[in-house]
Amino acid sequence: MQRMNYIQDYIESHKDRFLQELFGLIRIPSISSEKEHKEDMIKAAEYWKKSIREADADKAEVITTKGNPVVYGEKIIDPLLPTALVYGHYDVMPVDPLDLWESPPFRPEVRNGRIYARGADDDKGQAFMQAKAFELMVRTNTLPCNIKFMIEGEEEIGSPSLAAFCEAHKEMLKSDIILVSDTGMVSMDCPSVTVGLRGLAYMQVELTGPDHDLHSGLFGGAVANPVNVLTKLIAGLTDENGKITIPGFYDDVQLVSTEERDLMAKAPFDEEAYKQAIDVVALDGEAGYTTRERTGIRPSLDVNGIWGGYTGEGSKTVLPSKAYAKISMRLVPNQNFKTISRLFEKHFLAIAPDTVKVKVKELHGGQAYVSPIDTPGYLAASRALETTFGKAPVPVRSGGSIPIISTFEQILGVKSILMGFGLESDACHSPNENYPLENFYKGIETIPYFFKYFTELMK
Amino acid sequence: MQRMNYIQDYIESHKDRFLQELFGLIRIPSISSEKEHKEDMIKAAEYWKKSIREADADKAEVITTKGNPVVYGEKIIDPLLPTALVYGHYDVMPVDPLDLWESPPFRPEVRNGRIYARGADDDKGQAFMQAKAFELMVRTNTLPCNIKFMIEGEEEIGSPSLAAFCEAHKEMLKSDIILVSDTGMVSMDCPSVTVGLRGLAYMQVELTGPDHDLHSGLFGGAVANPVNVLTKLIAGLTDENGKITIPGFYDDVQLVSTEERDLMAKAPFDEEAYKQAIDVVALDGEAGYTTRERTGIRPSLDVNGIWGGYTGEGSKTVLPSKAYAKISMRLVPNQNFKTISRLFEKHFLAIAPDTVKVKVKELHGGQAYVSPIDTPGYLAASRALETTFGKAPVPVRSGGSIPIISTFEQILGVKSILMGFGLESDACHSPNENYPLENFYKGIETIPYFFKYFTELMK
Repeated sequence: MQRMNYIQDYIESHKDRFLQELFGLIRIPSISSEKEHKEDMIKAAEYWKKSIREADADKAEVITTKGNPVVYGEKIIDPLLPTALVYGHYDVMPVDPLDLWESPPFRPEVRNGRIYARGADDDKGQAFMQAKAFELMVRTNTLPCNIKFMIEGEEEIGSPSLAAFCEAHKEMLKSDIILVSDTGMVSMDCPSVTVGLRGLAYMQVELTGPDHDLHSGLFGGAVANPVNVLTKLIAGLTDENGKITIPGFYDDVQLVSTEERDLMAKAPFDEEAYKQAIDVVALDGEAGYTTRERTGIRPSLDVNGIWGGYTGEGSKTVLPSKAYAKISMRLVPNQNFKTISRLFEKHFLAIAPDTVKVKVKELHGGQAYVSPIDTPGYLAASRALETTFGKAPVPVRSGGSIPIISTFEQILGVKSILMGFGLESDACHSPNENYPLENFYKGIETIPYFFKYFTELMK
Repeated sequence: MQRMNYIQDYIESHKDRFLQELFGLIRIPSISSEKEHKEDMIKAAEYWKKSIREADADKAEVITTKGNPVVYGEKIIDPLLPTALVYGHYDVMPVDPLDLWESPPFRPEVRNGRIYARGADDDKGQAFMQAKAFELMVRTNTLPCNIKFMIEGEEEIGSPSLAAFCEAHKEMLKSDIILVSDTGMVSMDCPSVTVGLRGLAYMQVELTGPDHDLHSGLFGGAVANPVNVLTKLIAGLTDENGKITIPGFYDDVQLVSTEERDLMAKAPFDEEAYKQAIDVVALDGEAGYTTRERTGIRPSLDVNGIWGGYTGEGSKTVLPSKAYAKISMRLVPNQNFKTISRLFEKHFLAIAPDTVKVKVKELHGGQAYVSPIDTPGYLAASRALETTFGKAPVPVRSGGSIPIISTFEQILGVKSILMGFGLESDACHSPNENYPLENFYKGIETIPYFFKYFTELMK
């Protein structure tokens, strides 16, 4: 597992251009959850198409869907060789609260060795490493297998169009492995491969009390306040042990063996550093589980947003008509997000008092995912990381969700390898998202080894 | 108690001008809680000064305070006659949610016999009746007593400068009665005089969990979410019987006798119509009390606003750093709002877990008020209303607060008479605030009788 000079040399000669090309992609504010960015989605897709085409792919196209388009590319060097499908996404999360950003989210800049911008890591920075690694292999004549690209624009809103896209293009997307760079690693000293992802059920609730805002003096105490009611309903969704109280919620949760929990506990984890990084004095979660277990093998319920009544400066003595919350649940194998969404809706409607009208809607969701560690895909990733990082990676379960990964397995019948280079400090989905330059270049270096070892292992 | 023609005649001859003059006042967006309206406060004060001066007052001035200015006016016809001090306010509440207004809040218009605008009732429409009734008495040479005006610009934010103003101008403000038109009546068929007002303690809380927004997948379940925590804290402030759980909260609540409660129960109240007017199928409040009692003689706790996390379109999987709420409590005699604010703060900090940092601040407050019904002031109001409405009014306790009224009693040693002409359907503090033209003109007609009877009763 020798590092090869031609890879490092190619990166060294082209590193500034790689970065400038990534910046071009980042500058497109392709926020998939906000309608006003529809045009930007097309621009980002076209940018990707151009990158793949210029790296000398046989095919590079922007394929329309019911939602945002998918970029598809391929280079088939020999039908008898294995084929890898690279998946990534060109869409990004919203940027608010904007005032907490130290530099504008769509004007990438490098500070202290890190790229600061929305999408710097998730997933423009990471997915673009795949584009540049592909270019490197093509230009250095070292492409060991066939490569396909599928880059979508709806990952951050739950990939609503991608399942249908996969169904419609099964033959075109045929592959032996799906490679994804959209996750993190424990640290630069402890490379890791993500072997588990949580599922997601994302709901929105709307409570209506009186049909218009009332004077809180004239009516307060006699008319149920929908915000007060909402706090009671949400408060009741979890108990004092951090357990979710929705009936049936845990029925399908796969219990992880004591043996496996012991193994997981061996991965390095510095709880003090973890707390310090987010500036909290105490952590909290489900009783009986460690911090890593709470995000890795257990489901959770978070209010992602709440609003109602007067939220401006000063005071307004209003008894609001409406109260809203966005509430999401992270799920683990074998919870089905559709089942959980229905259980949530049923329970929420059941516990709501008749003083308010309640609407519950599912915004999006996805299934959890686990991948075995004895496959050619995992072994190739392990060896690739060992080559460039000097030590074998640990397999970890992430708390995040890439809902489409389990869909790929269902529709395309192929496992995915989540070889990501992000760090916890990258602030994905937060203000000041960033991605270290070191990780960007190390990623580009590592990816060619993955294809090399994967091709060898498949022989 | 005969209605006198000259009053009705004067109103009839000048009704269009009265309305246009009120519209001029309403068009000034004098929202006291929003800093960008500082200039508008001055404009509204100057408008009032001009109105009083043009009605031939001896004095009409705009007096600066630490906050918004106070308009002072007087006409002393004979130092030996009684003196009444008219109190009102020229500031109004904020207007959001703006999209629910059927016409722009500061462009008054008459639809179906009602003036629609912010301040149409509270308190531009009502206070301006006092200005026009004053003009009427002066122009018809029927002013029976001395009259003073004190119109402030900070009522909707708790009158922070008015106590100091009263302290500084005790001699100037000397009077035998304070007359206020800033409350409602049961209905046009059931005139009423407000003899009780609730106090107010208005707080804002801010919770900080992690120091920046986190990815709810990577951290959800392991890090306390400040919005989830906030819902638990607020939910716990009231119990299943609608009682407020803050230790000591009820200690000073004046219990109302069964006899007085029975008397109150005789005032007409149509619960079905009440529910229909606000479109709710069920009411809720403190167990053991009727709807009228819940707003009249019992304290309450309402969330006036709540916000945190992502509140835009679609979904964002964020574990927010911050959560906020504006929480106000309506108080009854003899609760002290300063004591209650301190109890709230102490309790809220005590119940907050160490997973979050908590800030509590008091935004404003005021004491509750009760007035006896055997005084010349009450009797004069009762006879005045009987003259123009054809039946004696019922004394009622309002759930609202005019915090300054109890301050007047403390500093100036004078009781206030709350003779208001608003209706519950006026939507004060809400979108589409309105005020019936009939009430506006009936108010102008009734007020001169008050001064007449009051002067007679004081002989």
